[in-house]
Amino acid sequence: MEPPSLSSPVFIEGFPGIGLVGVIACNHIVQELKMREIGFITSPLLPPVALIQEAVYTPSIRLYEDSQNEIIMVLSDVPVPLPITNELSRAIVDICEKLSVREIITIAGLATGGEERRVFISFSSKELKEKRKIEGIEEFFMGTISGIAGSTLMECHARGIPAISLLGETPSFNPDPKASAEVIKTMNRMYGWNISVDRLLEEAEKIEMQMQKLAEQVREKADRDRFMDYRMYG
Amino acid sequence: MEPPSLSSPVFIEGFPGIGLVGVIACNHIVQELKMREIGFITSPLLPPVALIQEAVYTPSIRLYEDSQNEIIMVLSDVPVPLPITNELSRAIVDICEKLSVREIITIAGLATGGEERRVFISFSSKELKEKRKIEGIEEFFMGTISGIAGSTLMECHARGIPAISLLGETPSFNPDPKASAEVIKTMNRMYGWNISVDRLLEEAEKIEMQMQKLAEQVREKADRDRFMDYRMYG
Amino acid sequence: MEPPSLSSPVFIEGFPGIGLVGVIACNHIVQELKMREIGFITSPLLPPVALIQEAVYTPSIRLYEDSQNEIIMVLSDVPVPLPITNELSRAIVDICEKLSVREIITIAGLATGGEERRVFISFSSKELKEKRKIEGIEEFFMGTISGIAGSTLMECHARGIPAISLLGETPSFNPDPKASAEVIKTMNRMYGWNISVDRLLEEAEKIEMQMQKLAEQVREKADRDRFMDYRMYG
Amino acid sequence: MEPPSLSSPVFIEGFPGIGLVGVIACNHIVQELKMREIGFITSPLLPPVALIQEAVYTPSIRLYEDSQNEIIMVLSDVPVPLPITNELSRAIVDICEKLSVREIITIAGLATGGEERRVFISFSSKELKEKRKIEGIEEFFMGTISGIAGSTLMECHARGIPAISLLGETPSFNPDPKASAEVIKTMNRMYGWNISVDRLLEEAEKIEMQMQKLAEQVREKADRDRFMDYRMYG
Amino acid sequence: MEPPSLSSPVFIEGFPGIGLVGVIACNHIVQELKMREIGFITSPLLPPVALIQEAVYTPSIRLYEDSQNEIIMVLSDVPVPLPITNELSRAIVDICEKLSVREIITIAGLATGGEERRVFISFSSKELKEKRKIEGIEEFFMGTISGIAGSTLMECHARGIPAISLLGETPSFNPDPKASAEVIKTMNRMYGWNISVDRLLEEAEKIEMQMQKLAEQVREKADRDRFMDYRMYG
Repeated sequence: MEPPSLSSPVFIEGFPGIGLVGVIACNHIVQELKMREIGFITSPLLPPVALIQEAVYTPSIRLYEDSQNEIIMVLSDVPVPLPITNELSRAIVDICEKLSVREIITIAGLATGGEERRVFISFSSKELKEKRKIEGIEEFFMGTISGIAGSTLMECHARGIPAISLLGETPSFNPDPKASAEVIKTMNRMYGWNISVDRLLEEAEKIEMQMQKLAEQVREKADRDRFMDYRMYG
Repeated sequence: MEPPSLSSPVFIEGFPGIGLVGVIACNHIVQELKMREIGFITSPLLPPVALIQEAVYTPSIRLYEDSQNEIIMVLSDVPVPLPITNELSRAIVDICEKLSVREIITIAGLATGGEERRVFISFSSKELKEKRKIEGIEEFFMGTISGIAGSTLMECHARGIPAISLLGETPSFNPDPKASAEVIKTMNRMYGWNISVDRLLEEAEKIEMQMQKLAEQVREKADRDRFMDYRMYG
Repeated sequence: MEPPSLSSPVFIEGFPGIGLVGVIACNHIVQELKMREIGFITSPLLPPVALIQEAVYTPSIRLYEDSQNEIIMVLSDVPVPLPITNELSRAIVDICEKLSVREIITIAGLATGGEERRVFISFSSKELKEKRKIEGIEEFFMGTISGIAGSTLMECHARGIPAISLLGETPSFNPDPKASAEVIKTMNRMYGWNISVDRLLEEAEKIEMQMQKLAEQVREKADRDRFMDYRMYG
Repeated sequence: MEPPSLSSPVFIEGFPGIGLVGVIACNHIVQELKMREIGFITSPLLPPVALIQEAVYTPSIRLYEDSQNEIIMVLSDVPVPLPITNELSRAIVDICEKLSVREIITIAGLATGGEERRVFISFSSKELKEKRKIEGIEEFFMGTISGIAGSTLMECHARGIPAISLLGETPSFNPDPKASAEVIKTMNRMYGWNISVDRLLEEAEKIEMQMQKLAEQVREKADRDRFMDYRMYG
Repeated sequence: MEPPSLSSPVFIEGFPGIGLVGVIACNHIVQELKMREIGFITSPLLPPVALIQEAVYTPSIRLYEDSQNEIIMVLSDVPVPLPITNELSRAIVDICEKLSVREIITIAGLATGGEERRVFISFSSKELKEKRKIEGIEEFFMGTISGIAGSTLMECHARGIPAISLLGETPSFNPDPKASAEVIKTMNRMYGWNISVDRLLEEAEKIEMQMQKLAEQVREKADRDRFMDYRMYG
């Protein structure tokens, strides 16, 4: 990882989950702000699948930096296997401590079945909630957050690091750029950023189809691999 | 964890189990005595699910203190995965030793199919039984106690720490505030406390419905997560 | 464990197995000789289930002593999970070495389908067999002994400690106090003891029913626990 | 392993996978260049199956050297069990670092369903892609590479070692010497080699049948072993 | 293990496998040469099953010595669980290195479906093959050897210890003393021994039946144990 250039950045976490809300939001921010790739996270416990983009190997879990808005981001193209979720969260929060981040934002999706696109917020501690209450954002009042987003909240609570979870409402499990756009607009208000979501909304339909096709490829690849294993070993 | 302020407290343990007897009793005591949250227990072996209450992350396994009645309590919102039950009991009894607790009470449920709400008692050692025999409490004469309550008894026996198990009789596996109320009344008698159970009984029906709804959410969340995993990996 | 008071005791091992022959025999000897409980064996790898007897937690794997007949005994109320069988045998033989035991007797059952109640003997080494041949006891000439009894023989052979296995013939898998009585009578002859089996034979039927009920309780408890797990996680 | 005699070799990796493209290509190169066997890789985590060729044990994962064309090769006759894929890649890249290899080529197959035999290329980093762009080779623009080939790309990216993946297009999962031939022709162009593929194409059909028969033997052997296990243990 | 008395012995390995060819051959040699038992191999990873012969515990994996013909032998009555096969081979080859053995012979079976009883040979290295080519023994030209025999070849190749595998042809998976006899006759020729196989051939039918009965006992025992487990835990 390259040496950090920011003194007290906000840290955004986006991993595959419901509606791919976090991944789509983070991908859009990377392109919109032309964020600089500064590193990646890897682990021998991740499945041996290499992602190729524009004919170049792309680490699945990448770190980006935007010095103007003071943002560091971790963005993952692959879902984290359940057994290493807690371990990965600890690794991410370790990085955040080294970078002296001001606040951690984890983005996830919340499938409600409805057609609204609200954004729900929750906090790693009571103190943070009191300090950071923002008008017009509904609270995720009671429930559970699972996966890497939940695990990161747990870890931040334990270490006393301020973390916020933003849940983008989405009708189903399908990729939902509209939910991602609402999360970005919420962050704009929270941090005084000015990240345009125009392109995201225009291309919503196109992105949805791209995402679905990629997911299908991953699935087919995995099927094929499993088949190979079966065929070879008997 | 904050430094303990009590010299020789009673320690109460409440984890999810049959009828949620322990969890409901402990939650009620926390509210009734306005107990102070003083710490939490976490482990990388717990599943990566964050519980949110009033929009704030709440550690699943929390420690509370009431200085007037000299009580320390561990209260968990999540059931403990079987493979870490023994380990967690050891961690809890370690804490009890550090806090020089006088006695450990583990609360659990006993589903008998009947409509009575008796409370059954059992002890970590013969010596304790002789010293602490209390009139009007039926003995859990012969049988087995499993899960964290059983594991804590085992650990206390091995270390020579006095521990008592109170089993609240309940007709089935459903949340049963009435059973919890009887356990609290028993503890009132045992320790000279005066914890009212009026509100618990009044709100019994309401609490039952709340609990069932939460359990359902957890279940649905877990289903969704599993589905995600399946969908992503093929 | 309390300091041993015997200079060269015989060590008896009784664990749940076919016909519960070892457990019933050992329980009877404990009561008949009013043996003194001197310790217990525990392990974080045992399942988290606490056995309660007369309202007091009872360690599942207990050590007893009888100074008159120079006996040390390990008696377990729970079957040993297969993956820790070898490890537990090593722990038991470690204890035997510390106590300088003269000879180890492991009691098990042998289901033959017939109605006879013979006792079969086998030895940890040829030397022992030559030294300890006793008239009227049939040899377990060829076959296999599995579980903790087999594992203890293996461990004793490896360390050169004399060990004898007594297999009580029993028609089926059901608890069989008559088989246990025959094993005790055999040990009386081998060691010049005088342990009465009258009560055991009188109460044979009663004991059988008690044992079956306890087994049923354990099974139901386990079913319930499994159900809980399922219900909570999804 | 024998001491390396080359100062800055190209390293080729061929493991069983789709169409056996890598294995067939590497086997042909070994024969065509009369490459010298210089070592092998083994691991206690590989399945206990010994491959016999011409009545002599042949390590499954072998290293070869050709000093004229400056090539080091790792060639495996057995597919790598998924759980040790990442570990094996690290071992291979360790060897490459010790040998100061110039570039790593991993050969794999890409089943497209079509009848063409294109070769697709991808790179371990953007820098490498810019430096090594070769006319007439299609880019594997977007997708995933799994197994040892993907894992090696990941490891090389992490360590900053230049690695290239060549994917030979093949219609199905069957052994496909024609795809292997195209990959070899591509490498000839990339590295100025002159490895003839005439024999490979002539014998294509014969090789296909040989390969299928071997695969069948492995499968039957595994079936038999599994059967043995079942039969012996019960 | 007793101190070795031989300066440069041949080491024979016989484990249960196809046709029990290795086990029957080794058992016969032990009896015919009246070999001396000099030790045994044990491991906490072996299943807890004690084999009893003539009422005496017999280690499953035993070492024998014959000083006249300069033979050391490892003979196992139980098949090796797959996960510890590689580990056990390493332990055996460690012993061979300590004993400075001249050559290792692993005996296994090869089920061909035919009625011939050929013996096939393969070698741990090319050098050995050239040095040890023996007329009239067919080469196991191409194929795979799995289990402990394959694993021992792998280990010997890696350490540079000369090892030979002799595969006795057998029509099916049933115990086949005739195949074992042919392997012994081959070894007689190879090493100038004079081990009679008369008794083996005379008793072929009897041995076959004995072996099948023992296998059945082991299987039934295992079934019973599994049943026990099930019954106890629920």
